[in-house]
Amino acid sequence: MDNRNNAISLSVVKRLPRYYRFLENLKNNGIVRISSKELAERMGLTASQIRHDFNCFGGFGQQGYGYNVPELYRKIGEILYVESEVKTILIGAGNLGKAVSNKIFTRQCGFRLVGIFYKNEAIAGKMIHGIPVRHTDYLENFCIDNHPTCAVICIPANDMKELTDLLCRLGITSFWNFSNYDIAMAHPEVLVESVHLTDSMMTLSYLVNNQGGDEQ
Amino acid sequence: MDNRNNAISLSVVKRLPRYYRFLENLKNNGIVRISSKELAERMGLTASQIRHDFNCFGGFGQQGYGYNVPELYRKIGEILYVESEVKTILIGAGNLGKAVSNKIFTRQCGFRLVGIFYKNEAIAGKMIHGIPVRHTDYLENFCIDNHPTCAVICIPANDMKELTDLLCRLGITSFWNFSNYDIAMAHPEVLVESVHLTDSMMTLSYLVNNQGGDEQ
Repeated sequence: MDNRNNAISLSVVKRLPRYYRFLENLKNNGIVRISSKELAERMGLTASQIRHDFNCFGGFGQQGYGYNVPELYRKIGEILYVESEVKTILIGAGNLGKAVSNKIFTRQCGFRLVGIFYKNEAIAGKMIHGIPVRHTDYLENFCIDNHPTCAVICIPANDMKELTDLLCRLGITSFWNFSNYDIAMAHPEVLVESVHLTDSMMTLSYLVNNQGGDEQ
Repeated sequence: MDNRNNAISLSVVKRLPRYYRFLENLKNNGIVRISSKELAERMGLTASQIRHDFNCFGGFGQQGYGYNVPELYRKIGEILYVESEVKTILIGAGNLGKAVSNKIFTRQCGFRLVGIFYKNEAIAGKMIHGIPVRHTDYLENFCIDNHPTCAVICIPANDMKELTDLLCRLGITSFWNFSNYDIAMAHPEVLVESVHLTDSMMTLSYLVNNQGGDEQ
């Protein structure tokens, strides 16, 4: 970690979880050592891209010996801070909110869910993974008492302006955003990782309808 | 559409749904005309990038007059084939599957859900948006009878190899993939749009823990 280069591009960062996924798979299959060439083949990358990416973090292998899989897995996990427990609240407890909370609970990926909020009265009071769903009316007091710093947004874009303004005022500095509201445009001071499901589906629609054409 | 350039990069394609989203918002707010400069400001892009992107499709504006919002919205929708109805099946009817089926039903984005499959006996027979959830045992016959060409995968990565092999054999040529299984590596002949939730969360974890450092 000490060798970490300070100018790591977002595109390299975004590839790290994929390396982590492949390495986990290799590790679970009992593979202990892998060359950059073989890892590249399995991942559909080039060996030089892999070496370049890893060199951003000081490099993880010895020339000619390949990578030690469990060690590389652990190191990438460290870089991604998968073991950290950033205090996180979830806004929205519909199907998507529940699916996302499952993800956070079943998979160590750097966040710890401490509160769940929903404006649907009928669901308030129910438990999800041992956490009571609270009505959004309690959001402000909860944040003042518990100091979460990350919010996962699983509600539609309506009302998002007021909500994000409030959350930012209450100390939320990062968002995992599933709504179509562009949080980063309204609040350039916070970190936002967005999952725009509709965008993803429309991209596929384009590709499907231009299949065999200009796209590979 | 006739002017469409044949060498459109995937990065331009991936920006189109975002334009579509912003334009929909402008349209819903009664805005009829917008300059590339103003659109750029609202989207956090540069005017020249917007003009470059739109020029890939023959350009949509008249120099100096700006863009007609409803017309541009309609044209981008056409390019994305949002009105097409690619026959689609959903595999997985847990929380994520239900959330994704809501998305497909409430939002015109190029696909029509015709079948839902799940290996959980308890849920088989229930209706989601008027479609019965069928046990995966019926998948093969259903595909032979109904010829879906797209599959949405909302189950974990286990068993995915057999399942995707089967689906490809049954005529599925595109996947909207929420599992961690790398379909494109196993089946380079099909189109895959993946949503890797864990990857997204780990990217945020990296950014949160390197906040104020090298990332903007």
